[in-house]
Amino acid sequence: MHLTEDHEALRATIRKWIENDVNPYVDEWEEAQIFPAHKVFKRAGDLGLLGIDKPEQFGGMGLDYTFNAVLAEELGLIKAGGVPMAIGVQTDMATPALARHGSDELRAEYLAPAITGDIVFCLGVSEVGSGSDVASIRTTAIRDGDDYIINGGKMWTTSGTQADVCCLLANTSDDPAHKNKSLIIMPMDTPGVSVARKIRKVGMHSSDTAQLYFDNVRVPRRNLIGQEGMGFIYQMQQFQAERLWGAFSTLGSLQRAIDCTIDYTRERKAFGKSILDNQWVQFKLAEYQAELDVLRAACWQGAHAVARGEDVSRLATTCKLKAGRLAREIADGCLQFWGGMGFTEEVEISRIWRDGRLTSIGAGADEVMLQILTKMMGIYR
Amino acid sequence: MHLTEDHEALRATIRKWIENDVNPYVDEWEEAQIFPAHKVFKRAGDLGLLGIDKPEQFGGMGLDYTFNAVLAEELGLIKAGGVPMAIGVQTDMATPALARHGSDELRAEYLAPAITGDIVFCLGVSEVGSGSDVASIRTTAIRDGDDYIINGGKMWTTSGTQADVCCLLANTSDDPAHKNKSLIIMPMDTPGVSVARKIRKVGMHSSDTAQLYFDNVRVPRRNLIGQEGMGFIYQMQQFQAERLWGAFSTLGSLQRAIDCTIDYTRERKAFGKSILDNQWVQFKLAEYQAELDVLRAACWQGAHAVARGEDVSRLATTCKLKAGRLAREIADGCLQFWGGMGFTEEVEISRIWRDGRLTSIGAGADEVMLQILTKMMGIYR
Amino acid sequence: MHLTEDHEALRATIRKWIENDVNPYVDEWEEAQIFPAHKVFKRAGDLGLLGIDKPEQFGGMGLDYTFNAVLAEELGLIKAGGVPMAIGVQTDMATPALARHGSDELRAEYLAPAITGDIVFCLGVSEVGSGSDVASIRTTAIRDGDDYIINGGKMWTTSGTQADVCCLLANTSDDPAHKNKSLIIMPMDTPGVSVARKIRKVGMHSSDTAQLYFDNVRVPRRNLIGQEGMGFIYQMQQFQAERLWGAFSTLGSLQRAIDCTIDYTRERKAFGKSILDNQWVQFKLAEYQAELDVLRAACWQGAHAVARGEDVSRLATTCKLKAGRLAREIADGCLQFWGGMGFTEEVEISRIWRDGRLTSIGAGADEVMLQILTKMMGIYR
Amino acid sequence: MHLTEDHEALRATIRKWIENDVNPYVDEWEEAQIFPAHKVFKRAGDLGLLGIDKPEQFGGMGLDYTFNAVLAEELGLIKAGGVPMAIGVQTDMATPALARHGSDELRAEYLAPAITGDIVFCLGVSEVGSGSDVASIRTTAIRDGDDYIINGGKMWTTSGTQADVCCLLANTSDDPAHKNKSLIIMPMDTPGVSVARKIRKVGMHSSDTAQLYFDNVRVPRRNLIGQEGMGFIYQMQQFQAERLWGAFSTLGSLQRAIDCTIDYTRERKAFGKSILDNQWVQFKLAEYQAELDVLRAACWQGAHAVARGEDVSRLATTCKLKAGRLAREIADGCLQFWGGMGFTEEVEISRIWRDGRLTSIGAGADEVMLQILTKMMGIYR
Repeated sequence: MHLTEDHEALRATIRKWIENDVNPYVDEWEEAQIFPAHKVFKRAGDLGLLGIDKPEQFGGMGLDYTFNAVLAEELGLIKAGGVPMAIGVQTDMATPALARHGSDELRAEYLAPAITGDIVFCLGVSEVGSGSDVASIRTTAIRDGDDYIINGGKMWTTSGTQADVCCLLANTSDDPAHKNKSLIIMPMDTPGVSVARKIRKVGMHSSDTAQLYFDNVRVPRRNLIGQEGMGFIYQMQQFQAERLWGAFSTLGSLQRAIDCTIDYTRERKAFGKSILDNQWVQFKLAEYQAELDVLRAACWQGAHAVARGEDVSRLATTCKLKAGRLAREIADGCLQFWGGMGFTEEVEISRIWRDGRLTSIGAGADEVMLQILTKMMGIYR
Repeated sequence: MHLTEDHEALRATIRKWIENDVNPYVDEWEEAQIFPAHKVFKRAGDLGLLGIDKPEQFGGMGLDYTFNAVLAEELGLIKAGGVPMAIGVQTDMATPALARHGSDELRAEYLAPAITGDIVFCLGVSEVGSGSDVASIRTTAIRDGDDYIINGGKMWTTSGTQADVCCLLANTSDDPAHKNKSLIIMPMDTPGVSVARKIRKVGMHSSDTAQLYFDNVRVPRRNLIGQEGMGFIYQMQQFQAERLWGAFSTLGSLQRAIDCTIDYTRERKAFGKSILDNQWVQFKLAEYQAELDVLRAACWQGAHAVARGEDVSRLATTCKLKAGRLAREIADGCLQFWGGMGFTEEVEISRIWRDGRLTSIGAGADEVMLQILTKMMGIYR
Repeated sequence: MHLTEDHEALRATIRKWIENDVNPYVDEWEEAQIFPAHKVFKRAGDLGLLGIDKPEQFGGMGLDYTFNAVLAEELGLIKAGGVPMAIGVQTDMATPALARHGSDELRAEYLAPAITGDIVFCLGVSEVGSGSDVASIRTTAIRDGDDYIINGGKMWTTSGTQADVCCLLANTSDDPAHKNKSLIIMPMDTPGVSVARKIRKVGMHSSDTAQLYFDNVRVPRRNLIGQEGMGFIYQMQQFQAERLWGAFSTLGSLQRAIDCTIDYTRERKAFGKSILDNQWVQFKLAEYQAELDVLRAACWQGAHAVARGEDVSRLATTCKLKAGRLAREIADGCLQFWGGMGFTEEVEISRIWRDGRLTSIGAGADEVMLQILTKMMGIYR
Repeated sequence: MHLTEDHEALRATIRKWIENDVNPYVDEWEEAQIFPAHKVFKRAGDLGLLGIDKPEQFGGMGLDYTFNAVLAEELGLIKAGGVPMAIGVQTDMATPALARHGSDELRAEYLAPAITGDIVFCLGVSEVGSGSDVASIRTTAIRDGDDYIINGGKMWTTSGTQADVCCLLANTSDDPAHKNKSLIIMPMDTPGVSVARKIRKVGMHSSDTAQLYFDNVRVPRRNLIGQEGMGFIYQMQQFQAERLWGAFSTLGSLQRAIDCTIDYTRERKAFGKSILDNQWVQFKLAEYQAELDVLRAACWQGAHAVARGEDVSRLATTCKLKAGRLAREIADGCLQFWGGMGFTEEVEISRIWRDGRLTSIGAGADEVMLQILTKMMGIYR
C-alpha cells in the first residue's frame, strides 16, 4: 500500500490499545447493549487517535488522510462492530464539516474536546422515512434573534443516548431542498431534546442507537457550521469521508473474519480431517481473500488520493458499495464453515456476520450508491 | 401442486391455529428465549397436527406424506423460526424411526402421547465435534442386564431444556461406525441426564437449544427402537424426512419474507416514490419468487414421491441444499429493501434473516448435502 | 416425474433417432451454417414426433402435453442447438395457434403436412427493434378483396431461408396494439417475400436465421388463423408453449453439459490426478446438478398442469427465466473444467456454451420474463 | 492511478495507433482466423511499443513497468482479443526471461529484433495434457555436443503458425520436475519443427493457435536462457508478468464492453423507451463499473509495486483471478442488454464475450490461481 514507518508505528499503537483497552471488554458491552463511550474515547484521545487528520491548532495531529485510513482499517480488529462505528462517527462522520468549515470559536469549543475525547459526538441527519434520502428531511431550525429554534426529530442516531453534542442537519429556509439546509452544533443537554427510545438492532449491540425528538430546542446562531444553506453540500462532503471510512473499517473486520475462520477450521475436525483440509473450504477462503485484497487496493488508492487533495467521490462510493457486498458475502460464507458454532453468540464470526449486515444499509444503502454511480457515469435519467 | 380439497381444509385449519394461538405470542417467546412447548403442542395435538402421517393405531391421522407437507409449509407462517423447528423435531425428526420401527409397546408408551401433544420429544444425535458427521459420535449405551447404561453427551439439542423424552443415537457395540449404533428412547428425567447449558444463538431465539450430559443413565433395553446396530441406518432415513421437512418449512418462511417485503416497500417512500416502485426492487423480488416457485415444485415432487412410497434421498438432499441457499439469498436480499428498519429487532424480516441462517447448517450442512450428491452422482472418490 | 411406460417408450424412440439419424451429421451442419430441415423433419414426421400433442384428425398422435415434454427434453441430446430449435419452432412455436384456432381447411392444408414433416414452418413475429416487445411490430396486412396485402419485414426468423410457410403476425387494423393483430399463414414462395440475409450468430450455427422483407405480398384471407384482431392474444398463448418448450429443451442440453464434463474430467489428469478428483470440481458439479433437478421438477409440474388443461403462464415464465439463468451458469461453469480444450470448437461443451447463450435472449429475454412476473405478482406499476 | 504526463502521452500514441492501424482491419483478420503479425508488430515496434520496459541497450525504452501497464490496458481497446494477446506474448510472456536472464549475445540476436518488431515470438510451455500443470511437461532437450536435440511438442501456442522464434520450456535432465527444466530460444524454421494444426477456437479468432511437434530439432546450446535447470523458476517469474498483463488487458476490454453497451442501449428502444432508461440496466452497469474500478485499483497497485522492484506474486495472482471472473460476469451481463443483436457476430459485445472467456483459462486457470493463493495464505495442505 506504499505506507511509511510512521504509518506502521501508528498501526502498532492502535493494535496495542485495542488488545489491552478494548477487546477484553467488548463482550460485556455487547451484553449491556451500550459501551462507555466517554471512557473509551478519553483513552483514545490520549493516544491522539481521535484527531489524526484534524488541525494541530485544535489538538489534532495534522497528518494526512492515509494515517486516518490506518486507524479505520485497524478499528476493524475490535471484536464488536458498535465500538468502531461510534469512533467513526466521532472522527469521520460528525466532525469533518466542523473541522473544515467551522469558525475558530466553534472549533475551540467543540472540535478540540472531541479530539481529546472529552465529549462524544453524534450525527443528526437521518429521520424517520428519510434514511438514505437526505434531501427530504423535515427537521427545522428557525431563526429567532440570535438563536435557532429547532423542531423535529432524528432517527438511527449512533451514540444517541450518551452523546454530548449533535452535528445536526436542519432546514433553515423554504428554499429548494438542496439549498435550504444547514449544519448546526446542538448540545444534547439543551432543553427540548429528548431521547425517545433506544432502538434494538439485530447487530451492533454495543452501540446505542437512538431516536431523538426536538421540541423548541434553542441553540445560539453562532453554532452554525460555515454558511447557512450550505448544509446539504457540507453533508454530502462529509458522507464521502464516511463512506471511505466505512469501507476501510469493513476491510479490517472482514480480514478478521477470514483469519479467525482459518484458525477455527484448522482445529475443528469432521469426517476424519480438519475442516480446513477440504479443498472446497480452501478455495472459498482464497476467493474471499482475493476479493478483499482487490477492495483493499481500491480503498488505499482512495486514501492516497484524499491525501493529495483530489476528489474521491466516485471511488468512495464504489468502495462503500463493494464493502457492503463483501460484508455480506464473506461473513456469510465464513460463518458457514463454523457449522453449529457459527450460529451461536459465543463465537467471533457470528458477531461479524450480524454487525456487518449494516454496511450495506448505513451511510447510504447499496442502492443509493448504485444510483450515485449511475449519475457519475452519465447513464441516469 | 395437484392437491385436494382435503389438503386445503387442513391448510385452513393450520392457518387459523397459527393466527389465533401462535403468532400473537411469539414476540414474548422470542424475548424469553424459550416457548411453552407443552402448551403449544397440546393444542396442536388436539387439532391432530402432530400425527398427520402417523399410524391411526397410535392416534395419528394415517394420511399420506403430502398432508404432512402442507403442515411443514404452513408452519413457515409462524413468525419465529424456533417454534416450527420444535414441532418439526416432534413430528419429522425424532419420531419417524419410532413410528416405523418401534415395537407396539414402545409406540403406545411414547408415540401416542407425542401425537396428542402430551409429551415433548428432543433428538439426541449431534455431539460436540460431530455436527454433520454422525458416524463419529462417542456416546455409548452399554448393555447391563435388561438395561442400557448410557454415557456421553449431546449438543445442539432442540427443545433440550424442556423435552420429556429423547430419541437418542448411541454406540451399542465396537463394530464399525455404520453398524454399531442404535436408537433408544431415553426419558429426560432419568437420573444422570443433565442439561449443561442453554446455548445462546444468533437466531431461533424462541427455541431452547441445549447441551446434554449423560452420566451412567440407566434405560431399559425395551426402549430400543427396532434392531440393535441399525441406528445409523434408521437415523439416515430419519434425516431424509428431516431434510424434506426443512425444505418445506423454509418455503413457507421465505414466501413470508417476500410477501412482507412487498407490503413494507409499497408503503415506505424514498426519493419521492414507494420503494416498491423501483424497477430494481421489483425485478429482484420477481427473481426471488421465481427461485422459490422452482424449489416449491421440487419439494412437492418429493412429497408426492414419498406418498407413493418411493425413495427420495436425492431429491430431499437437493431440496434441503437449495432451501439453505435460498434462505440466505432471499432473506438477505429482502432485508436490504427495508433500509434501517431491516436492521432492527422490530420487524418480521430481520427475524426471518437470522432464523433462516440455520437452514444451511442444521440437519446436515450444505457441504454435507453436496458430498452426498457427489456420491449419488458417482463422482465422489 | 410420474411418467408412464408409454412415455419411456417414446423416449427410447427419440433417443434412437437422435443417435442414428441426427448426431452423426451435426458437425457438418454446424460447418455449413444450416441443416437440411426437410430431410430431418420428414424422418421425424415418419416417427410421429412432429405431432405428438396435435389432433389425430390432422395426423397427430393426440397425446397429452407430457409426451411432448419428453420430446422437448430429449431434443436437448442433439449435439447442436440449432436443430432442436428448428423442431421446436415447427411443433411448439409456429403451429400451436394453427392447431387450436385454425379452420379445418387451413389445418388440412398446412398443419397436416407440418406433422408429416413435408413442409417446414417458420414464425414471423420479431422485427427489427421489436424483439421482445411484440406489441410494437409494424408489419401490416391490409385487406384487399379476398386477400391480405402484406408489407414490412421480420427479423431473427429461425429456418427463415428454407421454410415453406410462415406463421406471420401482422397488424390488420389501426386499433390499439393489443387488439389490431392477426396471425396469418403466409407461404414463403409468395411473390414479394424476400430473404434479405442469413444472420451470422455466435452460436446455433446449424440454424439458418433470416431477415425477411415483404413487399406487397398477397395472401388469401382464408389463411387467417382464427379471428382477426386476436393475433396478439393467440401469440401470447403460443409464447407460453414456446417458453415451456424452451425450458425443457434446455434441461436436456444442460444435463448433457454436466454428463460430458464428468466424462471428460474423469479422464483428464492435472497435477497428478483426475480433474474430477478435485473436491472443488465435484461440489460445483453437484451444485449444478441440484439446480437442474429443481428446475426439472418445475418444468414437469408445468407439463402435467398443461395436460390437465390448467393455465401455466406463471410457471412457464418462471421456468423459461431459470432455464436461461442456468444455461449461462452451468455451461460456463462446466466449460471451465475443460481447460484449454473447452475453448476449442472441437468439443461438445463449447457448443453447448455458445448455443445456450440464446436461451436468456430468445422467446422473450430474461428481463421480459421478470417484467411479466412482476405483473403477475401485482407489484408492477 | 497517480500517473504522469508521460504516461498520458504514451496512452495517446497507443490510442491513435489502434484507431488508425489496427481497428480498421480486425474484422477481416477475424474472418481470416489470423492477423498479419509481422506487419502489425513492425509498426508497433516503430512506435517503440514492443520494448517499453526492455533495456535500452537492446532497443527498449527502459521505462518502468507502469508504462508497460498503460500499453496492456490500452490494448484492450483493440476490437479483437487475438491481437493484444499476440502482442502480450511478444512483450510480456515470451521475452521477459530472455530480457532478464539472457546473455548479451542472445539478446542482441533475438530480443533486439523482437523489440523492433522484425521477428515474432511464440511461447512453448503448455503441452497436451499439461495445460496449467507446467511441471508435468514432457518435451526434452538433450545435450549433444554444442547443441540440444529437442523432441516432443507443444499445445495452445499463440502465433504458432507464423512465429519466427519460440521461447521453449523443455526438460534438460532427469532431475526433479522443478529443477530439470530450461528455457531455450528455438528458431521455428529449424528442421524438425512442424506445425501440426491450427486449432479452431470459440473465440480469439484473429489469433493463430497451433499445436507444434518437434522431431530431433537441433538448436545450439548458446540459445539457452540463463542457467540450465532454472527454466521452471524463470517461467514462474514470467508467468507473474503474464498474469498482471492479462489482468490489465482485460480491464481495457471490459471497459469497452460497458462503454459500447451504454452507447447501444441508449439508442435501442423497447416498450417505448431506451433500454438504458431501465433502472435494472443502469444499476447492473453501475455494479459492473464498480467491480471494474476496484480491479483497476488493484492492477495499478501491482504495477507501481513492480516498478518499485517489489514481488507481486500474490497481487498478480489475485488480479488475474478476478479479471477472469469479471470477464465472464461483465461480458455476459452486458451482452444480455443487446437482445438478439448480442447473439450475432455483427456486434462488438459478442466478440468481447467469446474472446474474454479465455481469461479464466489461459495463463493458469482460475482454479490454479486459487490453489496458488491457498499456498500463499498458508492454508493448502
